Amino acid sequence: MSREYHVAVVGATGAVGTKIIEMLEGSSLPIKAIKFLASKRSAGKQLTFKDQPVIIRELVAEEFEGVDLAIFSAGGELSKKFAPEAVKRGVVVIDNTSAFRMDEKTPLVVPEVNADALHQHQGIIANPNCSTIQMMVALEPIRQKVGLDRVIVSTYQAVSGAGMSAIKELESQLTDMLAGKSADDVTAAILPCGGDKKHYPLAFNALPQIDVFGEDGYTFEEWKMVNETKKIMSDDSIKISVTCVRVPVLSGHSESVYLEVKEPTDVATIQALMNEAPGVVLQDDPANQLYPQALTSIDKKETFVGRIRRDLDVENGFHMWIVSDNLLKGAAWNSVQIAETLHQLELVRVP
Amino acid sequence: MSREYHVAVVGATGAVGTKIIEMLEGSSLPIKAIKFLASKRSAGKQLTFKDQPVIIRELVAEEFEGVDLAIFSAGGELSKKFAPEAVKRGVVVIDNTSAFRMDEKTPLVVPEVNADALHQHQGIIANPNCSTIQMMVALEPIRQKVGLDRVIVSTYQAVSGAGMSAIKELESQLTDMLAGKSADDVTAAILPCGGDKKHYPLAFNALPQIDVFGEDGYTFEEWKMVNETKKIMSDDSIKISVTCVRVPVLSGHSESVYLEVKEPTDVATIQALMNEAPGVVLQDDPANQLYPQALTSIDKKETFVGRIRRDLDVENGFHMWIVSDNLLKGAAWNSVQIAETLHQLELVRVP
Repeated sequence: MSREYHVAVVGATGAVGTKIIEMLEGSSLPIKAIKFLASKRSAGKQLTFKDQPVIIRELVAEEFEGVDLAIFSAGGELSKKFAPEAVKRGVVVIDNTSAFRMDEKTPLVVPEVNADALHQHQGIIANPNCSTIQMMVALEPIRQKVGLDRVIVSTYQAVSGAGMSAIKELESQLTDMLAGKSADDVTAAILPCGGDKKHYPLAFNALPQIDVFGEDGYTFEEWKMVNETKKIMSDDSIKISVTCVRVPVLSGHSESVYLEVKEPTDVATIQALMNEAPGVVLQDDPANQLYPQALTSIDKKETFVGRIRRDLDVENGFHMWIVSDNLLKGAAWNSVQIAETLHQLELVRVP
Repeated sequence: MSREYHVAVVGATGAVGTKIIEMLEGSSLPIKAIKFLASKRSAGKQLTFKDQPVIIRELVAEEFEGVDLAIFSAGGELSKKFAPEAVKRGVVVIDNTSAFRMDEKTPLVVPEVNADALHQHQGIIANPNCSTIQMMVALEPIRQKVGLDRVIVSTYQAVSGAGMSAIKELESQLTDMLAGKSADDVTAAILPCGGDKKHYPLAFNALPQIDVFGEDGYTFEEWKMVNETKKIMSDDSIKISVTCVRVPVLSGHSESVYLEVKEPTDVATIQALMNEAPGVVLQDDPANQLYPQALTSIDKKETFVGRIRRDLDVENGFHMWIVSDNLLKGAAWNSVQIAETLHQLELVRVP
């Protein structure tokens, strides 16, 4: 007998929360009740779900009573505090933050890649970092077919990954600079990342820092892509190094990806793999100037792959350009897809 | 006895031409007369040089009579037509276009790297592509010290490299989109490149095409970086593959560069090399969020290098972030620097 779920969205007013609600409205998940949780500041405000009014409630542990499934996207600190409270009350949590991603007991899931890992969940399932997810759906079919030895990635990440306030800040900087203000005189209080000391304008700039710096000169955003790739692919032997860069794009993360495969292959084979891969759309026709673009990826659930070509010197080396809407496949859609998969596998229960 | 020169600027009203005039005003080159040449459309208009009025004259072959040195930046077709005319009249030409760069008789010069090649000039000296130049000043000291086996680059290139009209187009797209227009409704008639069939908005986008597509799925911009690197470094054995991307930045090209060196070295050694390298400024202090940025590179002649770190898996692999003002070191300043070097070497003469 098919179950119906009481679903909660935690962080319902954020850039990702808003998209989670949209994705749930279009989802096949059987929802019998919905609850939107947010900070005290937003509590009492009204949103809608499938055209019905829903009053936002303040995020407190007691709100999880009677809930079956919660999708969290309100920052790592709140996930760390409230996800265990929810699980204690029998709620299965899909968490969009980095709080539990590298926790050994927590599956880190891209449904097209490692849905099987969901069977091991103990209440919390982590949604990977936006820039990791889109790379995984493109690279996993290649890894399956010809093996993956090494990856070098440079990202071109959109500002919406840093939230609503960062979007507003970029728009305000652009407005000011188009009106003649100097870059020294615009307000920069958020980027490159909220938790760090210095802030720089993103308008007409490229910032080679996302999240704070960690070990060996790499940022945490770069470490996330390294560690999450190995965990999702269950393969610690993959060589991967990353440079993460924020660019003045609203939504749509782009990635310039170099990979070395283990067995000989060619561009046509990789293109065919991309054509068959679930969640991937091949856009690769240089003669007709067809390649993925951030702007054309917006509001699409798929990951777009193009500019696939051989490295000019290394036999098993290839380059490609991978683009996806960071708020959808990179966050909201992957979370809701995890929810749908949990339902299909009858895993919406805390063991 | 020190000579003084009659200097001509061809394409004086363009994005690069304007900067060439600025750089000549501040240059140590002894200039006894200056001439600004441009299209018929601009002829008769007045510019200034060191506060003196200069009337723009129409570009015709006869204008080169009596000129000693001309800097061309008016597009490849005009260089092909008029540079030989100028040389015929005894003018030494420094050409900013791609017209003669791969010509065997034409030196392709970044003064910090291969000023010696100027001795072979036969009238024309080519200024390399903007994205090549800044990479050369950073990588050559490393190549000299520990050898260079392989380079993988992803660029983040500014719109000013595509000229004044492309700058105006980006600004107009941004103004329209900030006012609520959809990306489908803004004017896109220039980018990704003038010579191709389709045009896409650059506002809030990243376009993985600069110049038209050539062989093997690479664009000409990418081939330029490959071929010019080998020519400037006089080393065909360097492995290099490139992905060139235009981002919504006005000026300042950024490059995410991976390199493999031939002999063991470390980050501190590379940092020290960058500190000593002519034309390079090291900006590499993650703890204080110091790294090169497009915005802070504007109007500077130097190339800025930071985020130098070891690859996580490959022993001799390193990553770095290289930024420079594409209109200055990438074009106008490198050209004027070539002129100054020709003067110092007493090479302002057609052999």
